[in-house]
Amino acid sequence: MSHSNHVFGAADPGRDPGASPSPSFSRRGALGLALAGAGALALPPGAARAAGSLPAGALPRRFAATARELVSGALASNGAYRELVELVTRTPHRLSGSEGLERAIEWAAERARALGADEVRLQPVRVPHWERGSLERVELRGPRAVAGEALTCLALGGSDPTPEGGLTGRVLEVRDFDELLQRSADARGRIVFFSRPFPAERPDTFSGYGATVNQRVQGAVEAAKAGAIAVLVRSIGTHYGDYAHTGAMRYQPGVPRIPAASLSVQAAERLSALLAAEDEGEPVQVHLALDCRWRGEALSHNVIADVRGREHPEEIVLVGAHIDGWDVGQGAHDDGTGCGQCLEVVRLFAALAERPRRTLRMVLFTNEENGQAGGLAYHREHLEDMPHHVLALESDRGGFAPRGFTTNAADAGFAILKELCAELDFASAGELRVGGGGADIGPMAASGVPLVGFLPDSQRYFDLHHSHRDTLAQVSHREVNLGAGAIAALLWGVAEREERFPANL
Amino acid sequence: MSHSNHVFGAADPGRDPGASPSPSFSRRGALGLALAGAGALALPPGAARAAGSLPAGALPRRFAATARELVSGALASNGAYRELVELVTRTPHRLSGSEGLERAIEWAAERARALGADEVRLQPVRVPHWERGSLERVELRGPRAVAGEALTCLALGGSDPTPEGGLTGRVLEVRDFDELLQRSADARGRIVFFSRPFPAERPDTFSGYGATVNQRVQGAVEAAKAGAIAVLVRSIGTHYGDYAHTGAMRYQPGVPRIPAASLSVQAAERLSALLAAEDEGEPVQVHLALDCRWRGEALSHNVIADVRGREHPEEIVLVGAHIDGWDVGQGAHDDGTGCGQCLEVVRLFAALAERPRRTLRMVLFTNEENGQAGGLAYHREHLEDMPHHVLALESDRGGFAPRGFTTNAADAGFAILKELCAELDFASAGELRVGGGGADIGPMAASGVPLVGFLPDSQRYFDLHHSHRDTLAQVSHREVNLGAGAIAALLWGVAEREERFPANL
Repeated sequence: MSHSNHVFGAADPGRDPGASPSPSFSRRGALGLALAGAGALALPPGAARAAGSLPAGALPRRFAATARELVSGALASNGAYRELVELVTRTPHRLSGSEGLERAIEWAAERARALGADEVRLQPVRVPHWERGSLERVELRGPRAVAGEALTCLALGGSDPTPEGGLTGRVLEVRDFDELLQRSADARGRIVFFSRPFPAERPDTFSGYGATVNQRVQGAVEAAKAGAIAVLVRSIGTHYGDYAHTGAMRYQPGVPRIPAASLSVQAAERLSALLAAEDEGEPVQVHLALDCRWRGEALSHNVIADVRGREHPEEIVLVGAHIDGWDVGQGAHDDGTGCGQCLEVVRLFAALAERPRRTLRMVLFTNEENGQAGGLAYHREHLEDMPHHVLALESDRGGFAPRGFTTNAADAGFAILKELCAELDFASAGELRVGGGGADIGPMAASGVPLVGFLPDSQRYFDLHHSHRDTLAQVSHREVNLGAGAIAALLWGVAEREERFPANL
Repeated sequence: MSHSNHVFGAADPGRDPGASPSPSFSRRGALGLALAGAGALALPPGAARAAGSLPAGALPRRFAATARELVSGALASNGAYRELVELVTRTPHRLSGSEGLERAIEWAAERARALGADEVRLQPVRVPHWERGSLERVELRGPRAVAGEALTCLALGGSDPTPEGGLTGRVLEVRDFDELLQRSADARGRIVFFSRPFPAERPDTFSGYGATVNQRVQGAVEAAKAGAIAVLVRSIGTHYGDYAHTGAMRYQPGVPRIPAASLSVQAAERLSALLAAEDEGEPVQVHLALDCRWRGEALSHNVIADVRGREHPEEIVLVGAHIDGWDVGQGAHDDGTGCGQCLEVVRLFAALAERPRRTLRMVLFTNEENGQAGGLAYHREHLEDMPHHVLALESDRGGFAPRGFTTNAADAGFAILKELCAELDFASAGELRVGGGGADIGPMAASGVPLVGFLPDSQRYFDLHHSHRDTLAQVSHREVNLGAGAIAALLWGVAEREERFPANL
């Protein structure tokens, strides 16, 4: 492998752009573009590239060199990581409605300005406001030998509290909704415990998450339909330790709202073992006490920052992440790393000697975790401007080593992204898969905006996701920086192409 | 992506092989092979596969399905990780000549037997014996304002001690050997300090390591030639913290043997800052005291374990790692993870309902870190058997998420590996690059044995390599397990092919 020794950019956003080693297109631009247009019409892409004098249709001039400079710049600056450190140190808890989230939003807007964005604004968004409270306890009350033993738990996000003083009941353990249906006669008046483990044998952990997360999201509704008084869920995660996993759950109109909590994997296995050995004469009894509750709505904001393009400033290439997070751990990988990467992309673009043709827009969305109000509001309030949204990318699968990207782009767009990704192999980001872009940018699909999701390695994400373990200590500075560089490079390729990236029609 | 839900194998090596869901080739084998041979001659490989009834030339029958079962099995068993935990917990320090290394070797031989190897033996190897001792200190002695301040350090492996009571001197900081040559008049009687930082801007950290490690390996020789009394080296690593990095250094006949130590990156930056502000009236003085020393030679062993093939038991497909390690941290990623993966490959192969055609041989080499005596002895004492060595693979780049493999295989072999790797994309191990196999298997290249190196992601390795930070806490169980599965799948493909994998001629 060959690597550029040329380090692009510095940590200091105030450095003289005239002294930058970044590529400049201003003089050769016009000629290069005319030729590119002709080449794309007259020759098949391979022929154009083989000829050497004509740029390929998919890639802008100097894409490979600029990609290397952006990636080297992201690694050398350590910028994505440093922004992350500051974010999670100042505001580790950023749940919708919290004061921490609004402080983080103010901070991010200030950072975007300092890093060189031309325009920064806050878009007001009404968000749901749920609070964890101070009491969450799962305790064994029987058999006598184990009475008083606490099981590590977290209230699920959105749960109603238990009655004052908690509730106590026998436990019905089931693996899934089918088993619950078969045993629904046994569920009445009991605490239903969904104990399906995360399928460790799948190489892609998002696939394992998808296969088990319904017990967290929908478990309270299904258990309540069968007459249960509460629901406990084995944590949806790959970590063996004593960390419980929270996350959004739902109620359904007409179905009783029963309280819901998750148990750590260790606690869930403890409870399963006790139930397997249950003696009808002295049954397992569990006490659950939660004082979490809904507080109505609160005012929050999306952070929107533009680095204006030189030729088509009205055309937007969007990079996004979500700035809210759960109220446990620090939201480091979910989604502090995405925020750090977005800010670094702003810095890298603003520090270029020449701006790419189109505008880079960073959006840090609010309320991804429990409502997606930020993503919905962005789409709703920019509906008229959607035709100017060329492409949107989100980073919300953790700040791990890059693998590549997922996309919903239709054929022509997919082919262009494929060519761009092939040039990002040097940064370990060469893979392109069909897939979604991310929860916040999802609504834009309905407007035909091609969506891209940053795809990092998935092995460690569910060791820490939505738990007290999602902290800075779990982040590798090089991994998050390399991802920022790869994202910047891909988006520069889209923003600098002569022809607009094709919309999904 | 589609994943098999079918979990292959269990953690229990004693389970009934008849009940195994593993593939069996015994009945369809003969027909399949005859067709494969004809197909390979009569049809281009694409055509053969497109027809659906003929296996492709490069891949054995059922390769894709077996690869999925081996990878799922490795993830579900957690075996590679569990072996690692036991190894580094029992024997965190495994430097050549230590009692810890020999206990680890005995343990590994026992584990290979318990996991189902047919034959296990220890190959005696004479290894160099160096000890760190109990004193290693770098202390500032001037200017007065900082006198007494300690700088975090580690003796470099193989260094001679300082004279009793240590040595004290002024410091000449240089970036590299060229600068040392230019300033050699200033080096006499001083401590030479090589301060070249790891080039963070390179995406591949092994490239950065290669660009800086000469100051550790050769620094003492070059400094001594210029008349220096000792050498200090900025740690070769990507971590910002206060961890010093050790590793092998050399002396050269006819050049004075001066003591050598590394400083943590923080300590090196502290020293650089003090030197940049040095006042000739009150210069920076550093005191160095080391009581490390050479103890001659010791007896150690390679661990060799065979899982016999069903058709060509004399033909060997080798999987290796090194069981020795530095005497700091736990040698978790270097190379405990490789050892855990090798043992898991033994387990997976031994648990198959039907053995592949050729023998799987696991070799855990001794003395990789400071002499490579294990690898050299294995090659030397198996010279006559080298023609039966079909291929050798080593895992010694850390236990991170797989990317793929490197190889020195010549064209025909490279093409086969390329096809095998393409089928391993589902396990994130689809990449094949030209490159080495590993230090221990390196000597076999001279005998024409094709070599393969396991290629994990490189971003975190030099955050911990050869330092107190190389501990279990830095290992992801899923990452090391997934690597074990990918290695097992690739080697099964080589061991099960009808035609022997082509030698490097």
